[in-house]
Amino acid sequence: MAKNDPIELNQHTITRDPLPASKKIYVEGEIHKDIRVPMREIQLTNKEKVTVYDTSGPYTDPTAEVNVRKGLEQTRRAWVIGRGDVEEYEGREVKPIDNGYTDDEKAFATHNPDLQRKPLRAKKGHNVTQLHYARKGIITPEMEYIAIRENQRRQEWLEAETSEEREKRLKGNSFGAATPDLITPEFVRDEVAKGRAIIPANINHTELEPMIIGRNFLVKINANIGNSAVTSSIEEEVEKLVWGIRWGGDTVMDLSTGKNIHATRDYILRNSPVPIGTVPIYQALEKVNGVAEDLTWEVFRDTLIEQAEQGVDYFTIHAGVLLRYVPLTANRVTGIVSRGGSIMAKWCIAHHKENFLYTHFEEICEIMKTYDVSFSLGDGLRPGSLADANDEAQFGELETLGELTKIAWKHDVQVMIEGPGHVPMHMIKENMDKQLEVCDEAPFYTLGPLTTDIAPGYDHITSGIGAAMIGWYGCAMLCYVTPKEHLGLPNRDDVKTGIITYKLAAHAADVAKGHPGARYRDDELSKARFEFRWEDQFNLGLDPDTAREFHDETLPKDSAKVAHFCSMCGPKFCSMRISQDVRDYAAEKEKIEKGMQEKSEEFKKQGGEIYVELTD
Amino acid sequence: MAKNDPIELNQHTITRDPLPASKKIYVEGEIHKDIRVPMREIQLTNKEKVTVYDTSGPYTDPTAEVNVRKGLEQTRRAWVIGRGDVEEYEGREVKPIDNGYTDDEKAFATHNPDLQRKPLRAKKGHNVTQLHYARKGIITPEMEYIAIRENQRRQEWLEAETSEEREKRLKGNSFGAATPDLITPEFVRDEVAKGRAIIPANINHTELEPMIIGRNFLVKINANIGNSAVTSSIEEEVEKLVWGIRWGGDTVMDLSTGKNIHATRDYILRNSPVPIGTVPIYQALEKVNGVAEDLTWEVFRDTLIEQAEQGVDYFTIHAGVLLRYVPLTANRVTGIVSRGGSIMAKWCIAHHKENFLYTHFEEICEIMKTYDVSFSLGDGLRPGSLADANDEAQFGELETLGELTKIAWKHDVQVMIEGPGHVPMHMIKENMDKQLEVCDEAPFYTLGPLTTDIAPGYDHITSGIGAAMIGWYGCAMLCYVTPKEHLGLPNRDDVKTGIITYKLAAHAADVAKGHPGARYRDDELSKARFEFRWEDQFNLGLDPDTAREFHDETLPKDSAKVAHFCSMCGPKFCSMRISQDVRDYAAEKEKIEKGMQEKSEEFKKQGGEIYVELTD
Repeated sequence: MAKNDPIELNQHTITRDPLPASKKIYVEGEIHKDIRVPMREIQLTNKEKVTVYDTSGPYTDPTAEVNVRKGLEQTRRAWVIGRGDVEEYEGREVKPIDNGYTDDEKAFATHNPDLQRKPLRAKKGHNVTQLHYARKGIITPEMEYIAIRENQRRQEWLEAETSEEREKRLKGNSFGAATPDLITPEFVRDEVAKGRAIIPANINHTELEPMIIGRNFLVKINANIGNSAVTSSIEEEVEKLVWGIRWGGDTVMDLSTGKNIHATRDYILRNSPVPIGTVPIYQALEKVNGVAEDLTWEVFRDTLIEQAEQGVDYFTIHAGVLLRYVPLTANRVTGIVSRGGSIMAKWCIAHHKENFLYTHFEEICEIMKTYDVSFSLGDGLRPGSLADANDEAQFGELETLGELTKIAWKHDVQVMIEGPGHVPMHMIKENMDKQLEVCDEAPFYTLGPLTTDIAPGYDHITSGIGAAMIGWYGCAMLCYVTPKEHLGLPNRDDVKTGIITYKLAAHAADVAKGHPGARYRDDELSKARFEFRWEDQFNLGLDPDTAREFHDETLPKDSAKVAHFCSMCGPKFCSMRISQDVRDYAAEKEKIEKGMQEKSEEFKKQGGEIYVELTD
Repeated sequence: MAKNDPIELNQHTITRDPLPASKKIYVEGEIHKDIRVPMREIQLTNKEKVTVYDTSGPYTDPTAEVNVRKGLEQTRRAWVIGRGDVEEYEGREVKPIDNGYTDDEKAFATHNPDLQRKPLRAKKGHNVTQLHYARKGIITPEMEYIAIRENQRRQEWLEAETSEEREKRLKGNSFGAATPDLITPEFVRDEVAKGRAIIPANINHTELEPMIIGRNFLVKINANIGNSAVTSSIEEEVEKLVWGIRWGGDTVMDLSTGKNIHATRDYILRNSPVPIGTVPIYQALEKVNGVAEDLTWEVFRDTLIEQAEQGVDYFTIHAGVLLRYVPLTANRVTGIVSRGGSIMAKWCIAHHKENFLYTHFEEICEIMKTYDVSFSLGDGLRPGSLADANDEAQFGELETLGELTKIAWKHDVQVMIEGPGHVPMHMIKENMDKQLEVCDEAPFYTLGPLTTDIAPGYDHITSGIGAAMIGWYGCAMLCYVTPKEHLGLPNRDDVKTGIITYKLAAHAADVAKGHPGARYRDDELSKARFEFRWEDQFNLGLDPDTAREFHDETLPKDSAKVAHFCSMCGPKFCSMRISQDVRDYAAEKEKIEKGMQEKSEEFKKQGGEIYVELTD
């Protein structure tokens, strides 16, 4: 089999600059000494430093060597091997059809031998999921890593906080979520053991920087990438990943279809510090030439193993699309809009048989626990329009996902649940409440939801509204929507816009929940704003480049960045500046009142009654 | 006094095209026969037509003659005159200082004699506010106009609706708001009489297409324009207005400062079909060279009359910034961020006197009722950061605004209340509830609120989230925020982005409230989407141009606009297309079950028990 050299990858297309005024720092573990948790430290102009969560991986560390043709350093491999419950094995042979060809030459034109690793799997009789360890009381390096990461070094400022500040910061409404001031490794373990959080971390994804998805942790966001029928090169896909995590993507789903899907996944996984999710039925469908009826359990099973060996961290599996739910969608305004959902619906009605993902669910669990792939139980019947929200089909499927959650848990397999979609604001909470109830608090992972259907071109916003709300209500991860949703494939700018929108929605949710680490960054930015520290205001924001660019459009001069006014009011009048006068006045008033109060006390002592008490 | 010709205005800069596939239609009144209410009718490719609310005025009617140097047709003048309670008078002479000059030549270089109208005022002893008429039981032409306008011809499809569709459409949570299926002129009158809605309509703004602000009507949005210290020509300001209402601005605030402020306002008012609001203290401050301490009641009063004669429909007046509240802001993270609020705070502390807007409030009411200018009681102490939300200063001022509302109502003067600002999600509802309570349901008009401070460059989104939520909870009008908020002055694209964002937030709120006219457009768009009517999908959206442009980036060919697939999945597989198979299957299943059921019944009758009942 002629396995050619990899196609030429232009290293220069990979974005490597750190974010402005930012430095990568690493915090070491205590239980597991070899842990080094990356964070981003922002240097302010007033000498202070602010630490923020960092999803961008080694790419923003100028000292890290990166070669996308070789893949990232496999830091995590030692932890996995160290547990003594895995074995290397030969693994499934890559077939031409994995890349969408029957022809060897074409199929392997994109194959890169340097990215191949011998797969690991659980030794016979072992279960290597984080849930399994958690239930056995084991704190894994992944768990300690996550505890450190979630804290963002907040122990440093928590101590300096006054009780009043603390009270203000924590005043939120968490709808039952409960995040402690400091996340301990034991807390992480406990949440995973309860199934309330997952750590998507395939043992074959050894380049991973572990993260957690659960409502007692920071709300996470997912960004989708993927070549599609229309266009895009492997090189572009890797840069899409790097670009996506640069702006805050906590996980990335590779939704590639078409040719070279296996080779693309090699590049993505070997170069990804964040968990990668896929929808394996997409590739299975490619293998049967796009004819849903021709899908079989065998093709699907083989695809699961193919992808599990590569290191995919979570699989979207539409096992809840039951035959009996399918007719319930017939009178919908927008029928079935989930690609996976419609593939399975088509298969079910063509064969008049129950969904093979449902009938083979326990076998799927066996595969999942061999590699620690997490379930993302797909909502194949999610509503595609406000009109179809919260209907019988959608909630019927959700109940089935609840059943499947319990089966997965029986196998110690980690599970999260996917949710809608298009839901008007007043119907969002019902989704969250029902999910918590029927899925026993397994993490919820929703797409949006979009709160209106009338704004094509702005669906990052229609959905950002719903995402912020459902995040507040308890959703653990928000799948981003770009401005191109419903219209076309997102380009680089669209991806960034989608991510920043979702990042702000997730943060707004954290703040509203009263997450102990959330409000800090808002306060730091507000202080910078009030003190006219323009550079700090840009750099503390989610997108320093855009903030700076917008500012410079009106006031481009460097001197304006330290000017105590801005273009909104101009130099003559500035409301912010008046506040100093107010402070002086308040101090003066307090002084006077205190003086008068003292004089009054004095007179009283002397029996006089000249001064009356000030009440104001 | 040498009043020169107006500066050259390039007519071509005014946007005049109708929106794609749209036609301006006019619906006539029944009580007042001379009423012609403009609406936008969108022609779909399937021969259907959809009517939507239209704020764009004569500019999008190709048959309307528009000359911005002459002003729009004064349709409303006959209604005002017809009431017999107004008189023309000489009016206040325009002074050089009104345009920011002491020099006549400069001051009148921008003065346009063709835009001057003899002002109208209430005859002695008369009150010409819509509230006054409403309380007397009079249905004005403005009220009937609004009733027709708010209905968007929905009587046509309401009749065709099934009871199931109706139930679905109305299922919302209105938090106490109650919009009837059809708005009658009497309903409008009643809501105005109760103070629960306002019709900002200065008798001198005779070019106005009346609209209403109240929580039992469609949620409205405001767009700000205004030249600022830095730049912009009068010509640009008029086009900004036209541009803003094209995309859905229901009212426009002219926040101009600096030179030629009076002349600019002439152009804006004479060319505006939507209500214009201002913050008169800005111009008053210009007249005293930007020195807040030098402001006097006399300068302010003169400015009110100047602007009332020009036709400004609502004034933001910061009469609630009381001396005793000012020190409460001293320990805030971001002090006082409202320009008007800080001007008054500065004045109060400089003189150690109570705010003259408060002490002269009844005199202000006298002016307001002479021209029917509505109050927009300013929230001068609104929070400028999450940290300052819902604090003592903010809520103290709100209570004073409640007192002032009652005083204004005593004079039959219309009132709405301005609200914040920066508020995390979990603290938004408290704002709405408190406002309804202390201001006796006078309409609330908020800026955002912004739900996080960490996304400069994206504050249209951080605030769009809060705006949608507070609109749902009962806020009547949402003041837009553009992507340039906190960073610089918005350009044309920013204004559009801000407006579309707020339009979608307002619509999401209408849907969530269960407004009887809201969900219709979502459903029409969703149907178009499901049926691959791409053109209709674009044209039914809030921004057809952007939707089309985004689509064409990936699939530019005209044939793709009728193609039954899109770039997201490509031609081979399409989830939407599978739905037809599902429908066929469901129909077939139903047929079979019905047949079996019949056979079963037959057998039972014959005493047989071969078929068991299907339960599935």
